[in-house]
Amino acid sequence: MTSEFSVTTRQRSQMVDITAQVQAEVTRQNCQQGLVTVFVPHTTAAVTINEGADPDVCSDILGGLAGLVPLRSPEYRHSEGNSDAHIKATLVGASVQVPVAGGRLKLGTWQRIFLCEFDGPRSRTVLVHVGS
Amino acid sequence: MTSEFSVTTRQRSQMVDITAQVQAEVTRQNCQQGLVTVFVPHTTAAVTINEGADPDVCSDILGGLAGLVPLRSPEYRHSEGNSDAHIKATLVGASVQVPVAGGRLKLGTWQRIFLCEFDGPRSRTVLVHVGS
Amino acid sequence: MTSEFSVTTRQRSQMVDITAQVQAEVTRQNCQQGLVTVFVPHTTAAVTINEGADPDVCSDILGGLAGLVPLRSPEYRHSEGNSDAHIKATLVGASVQVPVAGGRLKLGTWQRIFLCEFDGPRSRTVLVHVGS
Repeated sequence: MTSEFSVTTRQRSQMVDITAQVQAEVTRQNCQQGLVTVFVPHTTAAVTINEGADPDVCSDILGGLAGLVPLRSPEYRHSEGNSDAHIKATLVGASVQVPVAGGRLKLGTWQRIFLCEFDGPRSRTVLVHVGS
Repeated sequence: MTSEFSVTTRQRSQMVDITAQVQAEVTRQNCQQGLVTVFVPHTTAAVTINEGADPDVCSDILGGLAGLVPLRSPEYRHSEGNSDAHIKATLVGASVQVPVAGGRLKLGTWQRIFLCEFDGPRSRTVLVHVGS
Repeated sequence: MTSEFSVTTRQRSQMVDITAQVQAEVTRQNCQQGLVTVFVPHTTAAVTINEGADPDVCSDILGGLAGLVPLRSPEYRHSEGNSDAHIKATLVGASVQVPVAGGRLKLGTWQRIFLCEFDGPRSRTVLVHVGS
């Protein structure tokens, strides 16, 4: 079953740890074993799994992406000025999957699930599908 | 259950909107609630979700990827001349997932599903798995 | 159901073909039709699907990623010296999905599943979820 929650972002580029909200949905649906899919219904945001212990990792990921995809380019045609965010969204992807066992997300020790905002600040929606 | 359809691409790099074909398969399988996985069985093509309203977005995504991954490089060893397409395929990925509710893909307002051709023109196969 | 296996990597950056281990798990669970998710519980490794016939393709993918994401940068803040590996992990992703039919992974002719090591050598864990 699919449910959803909202996240308010505060910067143009930001990674927001949403692991607790995803685990809460697994618990609410009483899923003991299965597969969770986290999906963002946006084209200038994404979702990824990476390290949450040291916030410098997220900072380096956002900096690395900014180095790859320039904010401005004479080659961009899309008139809204956020082509970089669309490109980053396709590079990172709109969904992640995590197995569930014993009622818990089977994340590694250092893994956390992050909403990636590339064109904020905005209010974003996150869909959580708990399946078998 | 998994079904498949074909897409004929017409350029070396191209994004083809396949949302209608994916939704048609959801409808044909009479899936009311679940999770759809779209998978391309190719190594120089990919699948992504991004904006379909303004075609300039796809143009900027393809241009951004071309800026990241050069067509030619003295460092490429693969002799077929399409190493850039293989690298792009790994960056974008071979599959996407979309939740289904009320018999409809739960895409955001601006989201469409695209086959990404990186070494066309070719005939490509798309697999659609409709699961729970 | 989710099971796991280990992979020992031997270089800092390496792609290890794990297709046989994933197919073995599909066979062991006697899955005839469904969807397999391969997930790595790590933040400096990833999983991708690409060509396995010519090993130069993997070499070019690793070289292309190294060209995109420098090993050292004055802008990296994370003190462990592996920020490049974290960035690559987010670009490639922690999971892939493959449909199953007739008891076999529905991979394309040239496709193989690879664990991507970006901060080895290490022992890595791979989770395989066989679902419907």
